[in-house]
Amino acid sequence: MSNITVQDVKERVIADNDAVAGVLRAELEAKNVFLINLMASPGAGKTTTLVRTINALKDEYRIGVMEADVDSVVDAETIEKTGAKVIQLHTGGSCHMDADMTKRGIEALGTDNLDVVFLENVGNLVCPAEFDVGAAKKVMILSVPEGDDKPLKYPLMFTVSDCLLVNKTDTAKVFHFEIDRLKENIKPLNQHMPVFPVSALTGDGFDEWITWLKNEIKTWRLHN
Amino acid sequence: MSNITVQDVKERVIADNDAVAGVLRAELEAKNVFLINLMASPGAGKTTTLVRTINALKDEYRIGVMEADVDSVVDAETIEKTGAKVIQLHTGGSCHMDADMTKRGIEALGTDNLDVVFLENVGNLVCPAEFDVGAAKKVMILSVPEGDDKPLKYPLMFTVSDCLLVNKTDTAKVFHFEIDRLKENIKPLNQHMPVFPVSALTGDGFDEWITWLKNEIKTWRLHN
Repeated sequence: MSNITVQDVKERVIADNDAVAGVLRAELEAKNVFLINLMASPGAGKTTTLVRTINALKDEYRIGVMEADVDSVVDAETIEKTGAKVIQLHTGGSCHMDADMTKRGIEALGTDNLDVVFLENVGNLVCPAEFDVGAAKKVMILSVPEGDDKPLKYPLMFTVSDCLLVNKTDTAKVFHFEIDRLKENIKPLNQHMPVFPVSALTGDGFDEWITWLKNEIKTWRLHN
Repeated sequence: MSNITVQDVKERVIADNDAVAGVLRAELEAKNVFLINLMASPGAGKTTTLVRTINALKDEYRIGVMEADVDSVVDAETIEKTGAKVIQLHTGGSCHMDADMTKRGIEALGTDNLDVVFLENVGNLVCPAEFDVGAAKKVMILSVPEGDDKPLKYPLMFTVSDCLLVNKTDTAKVFHFEIDRLKENIKPLNQHMPVFPVSALTGDGFDEWITWLKNEIKTWRLHN
């Protein structure tokens, strides 16, 4: 087997993006709006996880959601039923949200009456990892059917995330997925990242995730 | 719910890419090398499908594989055991293969003793759909755990593909996946695309897919 690198030149759009992200983060801090960038593969269960998470938070916080998708409004329609304020963002073919697109989304959503905003990023484990959107926290979902080897193939996503939800644990019996092997694969990338096995379908494991998230929001608001 | 488009401007890199792809396709035709662009989400089972497909073809055709990944060589090591000629391509952070990267991969692989080459694209349902790499056929894999609504969210991938494998049918009992609903969702995008339900784990459904593929290769070689 030979091994070659076919593209070594990284576009410098990243630096410009980071500057816009920094400004947006400062603006959101000034408004006391906690933005969460939720990232995962297609079909990992982002929307189902989000619905259950919103329901667990909505008595305490006023919640907004930006649903980013290449096309369609199916996720936004699902989220709308929770009572959260929802906006659908079409990325016009782009495979990720960047800081400028997020800034425009935030302006369109309006944050005057919101405490917590979720950005459901485009289903993709590659590019969203490279683009800081100005969020307070980055949360990744990996689903059991995707396999416990994914940190080897998509290392940046596991490196930049602040927290990992391992979703669809209810299906673990039909897949050869080992949470310990996953954690071993994550260790060299992000040793202290909390990993929460959950099932967005049954609610299993959500207590730990919601406790962590509420604590992060509280700490951020205290220091803000 | 409000609905806005945050990015309408598509980069014109696509036009340049298509020109390179056209040249590469002509070169591969001159060499009688049938290139297949295999696309799917992370964890949809591209490599397992490829191993079983290679084993079904290798008595008849000399096979090469280009494994495109952001990082790691795990897939190439798996493929190598089939006896196929393998090269690992690192995309250096890019979320898709383009025609120029594919051309360089083909040069590094060498095609003098090959009849069929598989490009295992980066795990991603968005950008790989936009980039013609010069392949004779585009094959998409969707796995059952991803859900039957994916054509609504990633329409371009379903539009450009010549064939769809629906993998992990062995797990259908734990997911609410309906093949008929999937086909309904595909119909407005790509009415005549063949859809093969398979399990790369058990081999179920592979006969139909292999028959289709062998027929496509034979027809292509006859007209070439």
